[in-house]
Amino acid sequence: MKLYGSPGAPCTARVLLCLEEVGAEYELVTLSMPTGEHKGPVHLARNPFGQIPALEDGDLVLFESRAISRYVVRKYKTKASDLLKEGNLSESTMVDVWLEVEAQQYNPAISPIVFQSFILPKMRGATPDQAIIDTNLEKLKKVLEVYEARLSNSKYLAGDFFSLADLSHFSYTKYLMATPYGSVFESYPHVKAWWDDITSRPAFKKVAAGMMGS
Amino acid sequence: MKLYGSPGAPCTARVLLCLEEVGAEYELVTLSMPTGEHKGPVHLARNPFGQIPALEDGDLVLFESRAISRYVVRKYKTKASDLLKEGNLSESTMVDVWLEVEAQQYNPAISPIVFQSFILPKMRGATPDQAIIDTNLEKLKKVLEVYEARLSNSKYLAGDFFSLADLSHFSYTKYLMATPYGSVFESYPHVKAWWDDITSRPAFKKVAAGMMGS
Repeated sequence: MKLYGSPGAPCTARVLLCLEEVGAEYELVTLSMPTGEHKGPVHLARNPFGQIPALEDGDLVLFESRAISRYVVRKYKTKASDLLKEGNLSESTMVDVWLEVEAQQYNPAISPIVFQSFILPKMRGATPDQAIIDTNLEKLKKVLEVYEARLSNSKYLAGDFFSLADLSHFSYTKYLMATPYGSVFESYPHVKAWWDDITSRPAFKKVAAGMMGS
Repeated sequence: MKLYGSPGAPCTARVLLCLEEVGAEYELVTLSMPTGEHKGPVHLARNPFGQIPALEDGDLVLFESRAISRYVVRKYKTKASDLLKEGNLSESTMVDVWLEVEAQQYNPAISPIVFQSFILPKMRGATPDQAIIDTNLEKLKKVLEVYEARLSNSKYLAGDFFSLADLSHFSYTKYLMATPYGSVFESYPHVKAWWDDITSRPAFKKVAAGMMGS
């Protein structure tokens, strides 16, 4: 399997974490974002939207990080490790619910904060827009209130088992934690404990190091 | 099963279409949006984000329309009808890819157009913002170019089989077609043929009638 992307890009990191978590063999092919390699014809044949990441596995060519993640989990699942719980209808459904919450509630709030407070100043030398940060920080707090209630009742988002739903929150949250706005998590003790738990996993530590360029 | 929502709301209509397509027995419980019933404590216990729809099936309480749809498809799948193709790794993966394309590329472009040109003037008596419509119409055209190429090579989005990925596009597109902006589809003949095909299915006709209040 070849993953085309950039280790510092949050959506590439989502898939890298999946690959590491399930112990897949893969090669990361880093595309040059400054030269627009992801918008060139070779990559457009992999992903017609010209975005990263894309995954090649034999004849299968995939894009959209959350879809690639499902594929990787399904292909490498074992009895001991099944991050989608597809053998159990109610468990797999709760994984789906919280995967959708990540995509539809958490990500729309956290990603503009990370873009403005981390990606613009640290990767592109540009000035952040404080109003965008403030608006989305308020949205994120409302989402985190729901997470705090949820994680007071179960150890992980989908239930008392670690799943793809937890994993999928990692990359944007990791960057948020590298900004002053990461302190927002201190007001939500169950969310903070969940974050400390999932980031202690070896795969998370390995991918975090690559994201931060260390 | 009880579905809590509003038949005219696009995300409720997504799940209704799924329920009709698989032939599930269900009861639709219509919540009063003008009185804020979806923000009251009874519904917040079903969906802590205070949004519609939510589904109750015995002890299982679900929210997020795309997650509910997966549940309905999985629960009612037969050999003849499996809209997720979960028994086949490469087919199920292509369904996931195009479900994500709907959620991450198509919906962010079409939903603001529908909100401004249909929901505001026809449901709330308010004036649309033409600049928002124009910006998102340009985004939608870029997405439809990719769909045109895809649907020139396969009959449906995930391949030569109808799937949840096709179904998930229905409700917003149906409202777009009720505005002058629906004519944008005329420039993409394979997309138009795909739309005519899927909307000829009996379940689509039934749900469309409920959406339009007829």
